[in-house]
Amino acid sequence: MTDDSPRNAAAPADRPERFAYFGPEGTFTEAALLTLPEARQGVREPYATVPMALDAVRRGDADAAMVPLENSVEGPVPTTVDELADGDVLLITREVILPVEFALLVRPGTALEDIKSVCTHPHAHAQCRRWLARTLPHAHVATGTSTAGAAMAVADPTSGFDAAIAAPIAGERYGLVPAAESIADRPGAVTRFVLARRPGPPAAPVGFDRTSLMAYLTDDHPGALLEFLTEFAVRGVNLTLIQSRPTGDGFGRYRFWIDCEGHVADARVGEALMGLRRICSDVRFLGSYPRADQGRIEIRRGTHDSDFAEASAWLHAIRSGHDL
Amino acid sequence: MTDDSPRNAAAPADRPERFAYFGPEGTFTEAALLTLPEARQGVREPYATVPMALDAVRRGDADAAMVPLENSVEGPVPTTVDELADGDVLLITREVILPVEFALLVRPGTALEDIKSVCTHPHAHAQCRRWLARTLPHAHVATGTSTAGAAMAVADPTSGFDAAIAAPIAGERYGLVPAAESIADRPGAVTRFVLARRPGPPAAPVGFDRTSLMAYLTDDHPGALLEFLTEFAVRGVNLTLIQSRPTGDGFGRYRFWIDCEGHVADARVGEALMGLRRICSDVRFLGSYPRADQGRIEIRRGTHDSDFAEASAWLHAIRSGHDL
Amino acid sequence: MTDDSPRNAAAPADRPERFAYFGPEGTFTEAALLTLPEARQGVREPYATVPMALDAVRRGDADAAMVPLENSVEGPVPTTVDELADGDVLLITREVILPVEFALLVRPGTALEDIKSVCTHPHAHAQCRRWLARTLPHAHVATGTSTAGAAMAVADPTSGFDAAIAAPIAGERYGLVPAAESIADRPGAVTRFVLARRPGPPAAPVGFDRTSLMAYLTDDHPGALLEFLTEFAVRGVNLTLIQSRPTGDGFGRYRFWIDCEGHVADARVGEALMGLRRICSDVRFLGSYPRADQGRIEIRRGTHDSDFAEASAWLHAIRSGHDL
Amino acid sequence: MTDDSPRNAAAPADRPERFAYFGPEGTFTEAALLTLPEARQGVREPYATVPMALDAVRRGDADAAMVPLENSVEGPVPTTVDELADGDVLLITREVILPVEFALLVRPGTALEDIKSVCTHPHAHAQCRRWLARTLPHAHVATGTSTAGAAMAVADPTSGFDAAIAAPIAGERYGLVPAAESIADRPGAVTRFVLARRPGPPAAPVGFDRTSLMAYLTDDHPGALLEFLTEFAVRGVNLTLIQSRPTGDGFGRYRFWIDCEGHVADARVGEALMGLRRICSDVRFLGSYPRADQGRIEIRRGTHDSDFAEASAWLHAIRSGHDL
Repeated sequence: MTDDSPRNAAAPADRPERFAYFGPEGTFTEAALLTLPEARQGVREPYATVPMALDAVRRGDADAAMVPLENSVEGPVPTTVDELADGDVLLITREVILPVEFALLVRPGTALEDIKSVCTHPHAHAQCRRWLARTLPHAHVATGTSTAGAAMAVADPTSGFDAAIAAPIAGERYGLVPAAESIADRPGAVTRFVLARRPGPPAAPVGFDRTSLMAYLTDDHPGALLEFLTEFAVRGVNLTLIQSRPTGDGFGRYRFWIDCEGHVADARVGEALMGLRRICSDVRFLGSYPRADQGRIEIRRGTHDSDFAEASAWLHAIRSGHDL
Repeated sequence: MTDDSPRNAAAPADRPERFAYFGPEGTFTEAALLTLPEARQGVREPYATVPMALDAVRRGDADAAMVPLENSVEGPVPTTVDELADGDVLLITREVILPVEFALLVRPGTALEDIKSVCTHPHAHAQCRRWLARTLPHAHVATGTSTAGAAMAVADPTSGFDAAIAAPIAGERYGLVPAAESIADRPGAVTRFVLARRPGPPAAPVGFDRTSLMAYLTDDHPGALLEFLTEFAVRGVNLTLIQSRPTGDGFGRYRFWIDCEGHVADARVGEALMGLRRICSDVRFLGSYPRADQGRIEIRRGTHDSDFAEASAWLHAIRSGHDL
Repeated sequence: MTDDSPRNAAAPADRPERFAYFGPEGTFTEAALLTLPEARQGVREPYATVPMALDAVRRGDADAAMVPLENSVEGPVPTTVDELADGDVLLITREVILPVEFALLVRPGTALEDIKSVCTHPHAHAQCRRWLARTLPHAHVATGTSTAGAAMAVADPTSGFDAAIAAPIAGERYGLVPAAESIADRPGAVTRFVLARRPGPPAAPVGFDRTSLMAYLTDDHPGALLEFLTEFAVRGVNLTLIQSRPTGDGFGRYRFWIDCEGHVADARVGEALMGLRRICSDVRFLGSYPRADQGRIEIRRGTHDSDFAEASAWLHAIRSGHDL
Repeated sequence: MTDDSPRNAAAPADRPERFAYFGPEGTFTEAALLTLPEARQGVREPYATVPMALDAVRRGDADAAMVPLENSVEGPVPTTVDELADGDVLLITREVILPVEFALLVRPGTALEDIKSVCTHPHAHAQCRRWLARTLPHAHVATGTSTAGAAMAVADPTSGFDAAIAAPIAGERYGLVPAAESIADRPGAVTRFVLARRPGPPAAPVGFDRTSLMAYLTDDHPGALLEFLTEFAVRGVNLTLIQSRPTGDGFGRYRFWIDCEGHVADARVGEALMGLRRICSDVRFLGSYPRADQGRIEIRRGTHDSDFAEASAWLHAIRSGHDL
């Protein structure tokens, strides 16, 4: 076998080697990616925007992309949600949850009282709003596409910015030093990142799985959402997130990002998804993958796979007239 | 082939020839049985009680038994319900609904004003109570096991009974004449009869089917019944009867006779039954059979067999990673 | 004070003195009535039928009537249910639950093997059916309006009956002796009796109350019953009985006897009843009264009277713009 | 009457005169404010951020503040939602829905092909992303706190920005001209603005009202959200928006922004709100106000105010024992 063997030409489906991420270097997203052993060993390439990182996977320039999905303070990242919902299908195969730690980063020599302008990402701005109002009430705040990008800008003395709110890692990366640390208004904030890949079989169940999907309600008659949720409840499937997203063509039309406990291979999740499929105008499956918190799933009596299998055997017997 | 050919030795599963019924001759149940062409051509044998008629089928002495299940005034016939629920399994394959017409039958020569004692069945008594109170306020009323039995008794001048409340057919059968006709307090009453057979494949779907079953709730926590009914509602299966029946060992334990629209071969009915099976301590399937009223079934959007098949194919594709 | 004092002219609303009951003497119903101290001290008059006992109260000939409502083996007593549902309104103010003990009563000198004919009430017959089939397979069984009436009949040697199935008390009353005791097929059967009075304020809450009502569904669209039960569930009100009763004009129209935990004076029960009233074509309140089993009621979080009062005060503040 | 008369000192509660809005001049929010006749006649003052505009009302510096709440493409405006949910209570008394029309605004003399850097607000960026990628693939995009602020910045030739994406009105205001018009990726986008005031009685019902509230689920047991929605459904109250918002201290804890049809003064809405109040750990009422689209509300049978009043009178009669 030569060096040109196919095994080296492309990563096998279950072992990505080339990783795209929402960059530049120094973002929280890069930190999330680096928690994955295979990513530390693989090739990592930053992209300027979430859509660009995801498109790299779609085109085949990368095997997987790490992007931020949701922040415990700011909520969903609309770009990520809409890209996964509307763009060519990708599947989530991993999630990473990281604590969010913000520092006010400056060029060496800048004192806190000298800061007149601050650059950051809107989510970071939102999470440090009260600290800024208290500490730098007169500073002008500009927002860009990432916190790392803000740090990169501040590193340039001609940028007009005195400080960046960013992850501590971004300071190391761009030669900045902290003028203040742990400045988030609410300590304990976390961000959830997901690793998306081209369509294929979902990740194998591990017993603490999560399933994501996008569902479009057919209409908004009173009780439509209730019917929708009943499809989960009647099969004992617990939701961990429900997020209505505008459809872009007026209010009042519902589409929902749903995260539920369990794996699409689980009988109860599968039947719930089929139920949604039947009552919704569309359902997009976005992946089943291990929960980062490895939280134990409480399975309600009567909804284990074995309960479904037993009931199915019973129905078969009834229908065929055997073994009653 | 000789006269001893197997075809004559026993009726094939789909063509009963020997019929038991709740007798004696002249009951409404015999009238119900005679509405079936195969019964008119077959052998018909009356049994003194509903359990005896059903046991004849269980033993193989008859291919099918016609018994009364429910009366529009009096409600379920407890003996029939409990026999089908608790005895060895039988399947309902037909139903017949007959108007109930009561006459006051006497021996020729008896005048209305001479009647001192009346014999009938408790259900018939209940349905003619006000007419009796108005017309024969001082008559003594005794009840026996059937209206036809009451007519047979009255035919005997030494019985001590002057009149029977029974079906007109019973008068013809036992030589009685009507002293009054159409004496039910509420005109329009009907009785529903069912034909029960030994277990086997259910009757083929005809598009206006009904399914009967007995379900035992596991416990009686608040909302248990609601969960139970949700298993039907979420699959768009409409109930036509729900009847709680005591379990015989104290109040507050629920078991239910359920009639629903549709056939066990329908995907929506099958999935609902599996759902029940998973949450109930026990479910007994009692048959799928054509509705006597041939009422059209409204199938809710998303619950046709084709909707279930499409959703199942979609789930299969998701799980296998194909054709997303 | 003279003999014409008001105390003697009529019992005060909360202290009945004249009691009707479903007789004759010796019925289980009389035994139930005698468990009430006020009935032991008051006047007790048997009536031949349940409607007659209830009509005595309606006419004012009695202050209260004790009647059987439900048997743990046979289910509801249709006559009682329908009389309370359809006749002039009466309110249930008490319930009594008694174990049912059946004996085979004979005239002194009759041996078990001599018994050719047995007289009893249909419910008693149903509950001893297997014992009879086993012990007296060839005996003829006739049913009358009460077990005590059967005992009374057997006491007359010219009645043509050799034995009665009845309560042991009926033997004492009519000079019969037991040929066999405890003959019910299922030991542990109980019957529930209710004391009905003319309309007035319900009995005061005691903390372990039950409320009875009759509800008529407006239509039978899929899910109508589910909506109905949701009115209870959403307010945390647990049902202890649901019994569909035919309306007398065809199947498929639903009316329900409902027993629920709690008292009409409880906020959660009151709001549930108003909810029913709004979605049903009719609701008849049949009384709130202490549960005979004095079972402790589990009140779900958020459904105590204090929770309703707090929420109501909050709504008032919102609506008026005060104290937000 | 002197100049110091109280009538002049402050606007009466129902007639605001001093309006704060999310500025600077030229924002869509100013355009929304100018649709209100009273605002056109009153004093209007721009504030740099949504919290600052709302705080002006809280302090009494303004009678009312207009702020953006929701965009049909981007979803809720997190700052507005969280400020109304978490800050000192304010009430929404009006809503305005405006089509969103974006233009690429430049200083006179700038050609489309000269544009290297673009400034705008993140929501505007998101809504024109594809147009930008197609038309100006190499332009750098910076985002600030408002589209009008971006236009103001571009007006300064030393700003380093060549173009702003903003409302056409911002061009007029800051002396810019359109290099391209109607550049949103999805035509038909609209933004919903709300007018918030200090607490007081809600706006009077007009028959096409909307009610907003923030609700905190007590826990996340399976079905908790279903119970929550059932409080609305059982009273026939239709939701027009449900949006889960992170609580800021980890995922999986639910709080929801809810918009429903109807007015807090409507009986069905009031009872639903009380139901929420009883099952939620907290509920904040955010106002009842006319729907901008004046959409007719379908009131389900049994949920009119008159139905509630009738049921309440019936319950009162039952409880008191009168008029049964």
